[in-house]
Amino acid sequence: MIYFKTSNPHKFDEAKEIFKRYGIELGQIPETYREIQADSLEEVVKDALKTIENIGRGVFIEDAGLFIKALNGFPGVYSSYIENTIGNDGILKLMEDVDDRSAVFMSVVGFKGFKGFRDFDAMIFKGEVKGEIAFESRGTEGFGYDPIFIPEGYKKTFAEDFELKTRISHRRRAIEKLARFINPFINPR
Amino acid sequence: MIYFKTSNPHKFDEAKEIFKRYGIELGQIPETYREIQADSLEEVVKDALKTIENIGRGVFIEDAGLFIKALNGFPGVYSSYIENTIGNDGILKLMEDVDDRSAVFMSVVGFKGFKGFRDFDAMIFKGEVKGEIAFESRGTEGFGYDPIFIPEGYKKTFAEDFELKTRISHRRRAIEKLARFINPFINPR
Repeated sequence: MIYFKTSNPHKFDEAKEIFKRYGIELGQIPETYREIQADSLEEVVKDALKTIENIGRGVFIEDAGLFIKALNGFPGVYSSYIENTIGNDGILKLMEDVDDRSAVFMSVVGFKGFKGFRDFDAMIFKGEVKGEIAFESRGTEGFGYDPIFIPEGYKKTFAEDFELKTRISHRRRAIEKLARFINPFINPR
Repeated sequence: MIYFKTSNPHKFDEAKEIFKRYGIELGQIPETYREIQADSLEEVVKDALKTIENIGRGVFIEDAGLFIKALNGFPGVYSSYIENTIGNDGILKLMEDVDDRSAVFMSVVGFKGFKGFRDFDAMIFKGEVKGEIAFESRGTEGFGYDPIFIPEGYKKTFAEDFELKTRISHRRRAIEKLARFINPFINPR
């Protein structure tokens, strides 16, 4: 068993499902952690890992963001705050009359292993998915920017095709890397 | 003499001018400090004060933001990042067709006093100025959101009337409170 420190129930559910396939049980520590203001998700996660206490198990945190090219990476590291203030309507307004709609969803997982995992300090796993910003909000599944993000090679938004999101999302990719890394420790041959 | 820890030369110049009137010399520590992601400037400043080392003098930091009512406080605590990504043009775009243009500029100063000031921990001084978001960018003075902010009771933006900004700005108000507080320690009767 390892733990996911997150106050976001959506993220926890997504992660739990991924670990299940590896026969790894996932517990939740439903708490926030210190997030600094920084230029990259990696800096935020690396700093936050310093604050994670040794609970005698493996613990990970995850930070994600949507980086829109034409907006110089906005909303980026502050995706959550910006979602809660101007929301998807604000993003669509900023993208009116903007031709280059390319964007990247990024996820950075930070893992701290204790007891059984040796003492890995600041292990980082990244996942990303390229795509475009839709012209209007579509779909009701998922959360956050899912209704305005269309992954490359597809026509539906993440909120219109949750099965697709589950399969190819940035978070899925980052968390799967972690799952593969810790699998031998949890399920020794 | 006391020190202002800021990497922003504009802020330093503004502050230096204010302290001069009190006969207090101001030095600059041109460094950034840890800024957490938080809901208010006060939380950011209080956390940052914990990281300020004792240099045997008084040291202060300052964080400011523009809080737009119709945008739920956006850009708020992340004003600097948002200025650097979507800029004033982005704010004006978000405010297109928005009737309620009221906004508040806030400044929070955190002071840590050593030697001669006793050991004041986390002294906080706040300043604010109410106003409105202009319909277009006007003026070339100041920096940041100055060209789109019109203070209450006036018609010009802060960037069009720098003398006015110097006199009534949020930063001026917060820093003046600090100057009055430390004046007796620097200039005993």
